[in-house]
Amino acid sequence: MNGDLYITNVRPMGGEATSVTVQDGRIASYGGDAVPGADVVDGGGAIVVPGLVEAHTHLDKSLLGMRWYHNDVGPRLIDKIDNERAQKRLLGIDPARQSARQVVLSVAQGSTHIRSHVDVDTDMGLSGIEGVLKTREQYRGVVDIDIVAFPQSGMLIRPGTVELMEEALKLGADVIGGLDPSAIDRDPKGHLDVVFGLADRYGCPVDIHLHEPAELGAFSMELIIERTKALGLQGRVTVSHAFCLGMADQDYVASLIDALAEARVHILTTAPASRPVPPVKRLVDAGVVVAAGSDGIRDTWGPYGNADMLERAVLVGLRNNFRRDDEVALALDVCTHGGARMMDLDGYGLDVGCRADFVLLDGETLAEAVVSRRPRRLVVKNGRVVARDGRALVEAP
Amino acid sequence: MNGDLYITNVRPMGGEATSVTVQDGRIASYGGDAVPGADVVDGGGAIVVPGLVEAHTHLDKSLLGMRWYHNDVGPRLIDKIDNERAQKRLLGIDPARQSARQVVLSVAQGSTHIRSHVDVDTDMGLSGIEGVLKTREQYRGVVDIDIVAFPQSGMLIRPGTVELMEEALKLGADVIGGLDPSAIDRDPKGHLDVVFGLADRYGCPVDIHLHEPAELGAFSMELIIERTKALGLQGRVTVSHAFCLGMADQDYVASLIDALAEARVHILTTAPASRPVPPVKRLVDAGVVVAAGSDGIRDTWGPYGNADMLERAVLVGLRNNFRRDDEVALALDVCTHGGARMMDLDGYGLDVGCRADFVLLDGETLAEAVVSRRPRRLVVKNGRVVARDGRALVEAP
Repeated sequence: MNGDLYITNVRPMGGEATSVTVQDGRIASYGGDAVPGADVVDGGGAIVVPGLVEAHTHLDKSLLGMRWYHNDVGPRLIDKIDNERAQKRLLGIDPARQSARQVVLSVAQGSTHIRSHVDVDTDMGLSGIEGVLKTREQYRGVVDIDIVAFPQSGMLIRPGTVELMEEALKLGADVIGGLDPSAIDRDPKGHLDVVFGLADRYGCPVDIHLHEPAELGAFSMELIIERTKALGLQGRVTVSHAFCLGMADQDYVASLIDALAEARVHILTTAPASRPVPPVKRLVDAGVVVAAGSDGIRDTWGPYGNADMLERAVLVGLRNNFRRDDEVALALDVCTHGGARMMDLDGYGLDVGCRADFVLLDGETLAEAVVSRRPRRLVVKNGRVVARDGRALVEAP
Repeated sequence: MNGDLYITNVRPMGGEATSVTVQDGRIASYGGDAVPGADVVDGGGAIVVPGLVEAHTHLDKSLLGMRWYHNDVGPRLIDKIDNERAQKRLLGIDPARQSARQVVLSVAQGSTHIRSHVDVDTDMGLSGIEGVLKTREQYRGVVDIDIVAFPQSGMLIRPGTVELMEEALKLGADVIGGLDPSAIDRDPKGHLDVVFGLADRYGCPVDIHLHEPAELGAFSMELIIERTKALGLQGRVTVSHAFCLGMADQDYVASLIDALAEARVHILTTAPASRPVPPVKRLVDAGVVVAAGSDGIRDTWGPYGNADMLERAVLVGLRNNFRRDDEVALALDVCTHGGARMMDLDGYGLDVGCRADFVLLDGETLAEAVVSRRPRRLVVKNGRVVARDGRALVEAP
């Protein structure tokens, strides 16, 4: 055994059956003979898709594996933010332990890449970042984790936060985050100047939570696009949620979509059923990269979520009224290639030469596999099997 | 063994652990001693909830167990209606076989009652009704099925349909259905006069599909309420979908909700993510009965759905932004008691004396059990175990 893999009888994207050879952590060929010394795996006619990309979650604060949190939190955004900051201490939410638990759940379900926003605030300081950095080290090779320094409690409204955000980048965070420049920080210009200033100085991508509704969110989006172009950050900026793209004024939405495409600003959606959402097909047709994520999973904000990016593809489909097979395939594309393009992943995909990050799905057709969401038959990361039959081969604390 | 059941260590609605005694198909007592001759079952600390109620589906036309249907149907409602009528013959969709398959899936997941709309049209005649009647007989005692004669292809626009609807009632359909009086039948007064005329003559309840948007749907709803009151059908009329209650004009919505409550007209929602929806909590607070259903499951309309009414509760929760534990409990209530009240089920619930139709769920708390949607530990119908560990004890064709 030399660590290579030879998987027989698999159907890339649901197409014709073939074999796949994995060498040195990459896809070496399709349809070839077994390489001497390779582990031989019977694919059993499974469908192969690229590794699922969990492009927006909050690893540091899931309550997975902890006692059930009885939620009776108030209805406003600020109620949830303030409650969470308090509960972190009261419940003893350990970012290292909790992120490890969610990571193992993600791996079991075929996610090979994760972007996690991680809270940075003046109460908890950098403990979230430190915890998720520890988890990233622990599961290196099993899953790739992209860390966003995220000012969940606001930035300018809480003095000291900006300095912590900068410390987070020095410590190892990959991306600078932001949050509702008007609705939370009450100073859209000030907030975005800080975020983009840090991006410029540290050469890092930007990913901003924008829940602001309709014309207010659109104004923030305009400011984000302006700064993206001014600083030459095309292709490196993501707007997460972007509910404003679901507003009623369709002419305004059309002009925003054109501007996003031109500045190569990406859109991340969790496809929430209860909020306006970015129109996935219109965005993709206009050339905008669209990715998807679970958002928070079983945390103090809400009880839902299970880290299953096939279920997320179904929710993207349901939210966007995708019914046709080509539309279900688009929903899956958002949860695979969309996330990979958003995160600028190198060597992602099923082409020969790509990194061997892929998932075997049981299913008659691609659409059938997505909507049925059966336990994942096999998950391969960097050419190694990391999960089998819905169970990760690594353990959670 | 006398057919009685004694289940130890269960928690009704997630409360204190107790035992439940089932005699003669009814809940005889909680916390008593085992009855001689009863089957003793270890509840293992499971949560007991009343049987799930699938209050709106289309048993006659699911494609479950058939070859995957590649969907490339056009975007309009009429595209889907016309395509389906054609596909019924082309694919050989057998209403008896297909309804049986879906029924077994529902039973496995804890549904003890189903209301199915069944297509009646001049192409297929009453074959759908006959097929589902056969399935109802076959699974009698395992699940209760309520049959709605449903003019899926329109009624007045297709001469001969009205006569078939009446034949369906004579044949054994329980409920008279209707469909978009303006948008499909182009004659709201004419359509509703026929539907309510049949309800009046045959003494049966009414359940009308109303997809019509905003003010158009609201006008139809007003006509429905007027006829409900005029004919003394309070408590016996359901409006399914009722997207118009999700319209922007909040004063109009408020007046409609008041009118629904006064006329005791029920609302059925499938909680679609891509359409406006009736506001569940506002309706319930106003005293309107709200029930939920899967709608079509894996049919020519779309690939989604799995007959899991716990998943439907999650979708109701996500669509209505229910996050608190009491809100998740409300979503479950819609999928249990709401459906039972809509269908006017006799002896439904967990009270002593109620029919022994219940489900054992693994979970720490009620909300945790709902959001986790684990395989159902035990499903009891009429005092008999009909499913265990996610598998029905009856077979599908």
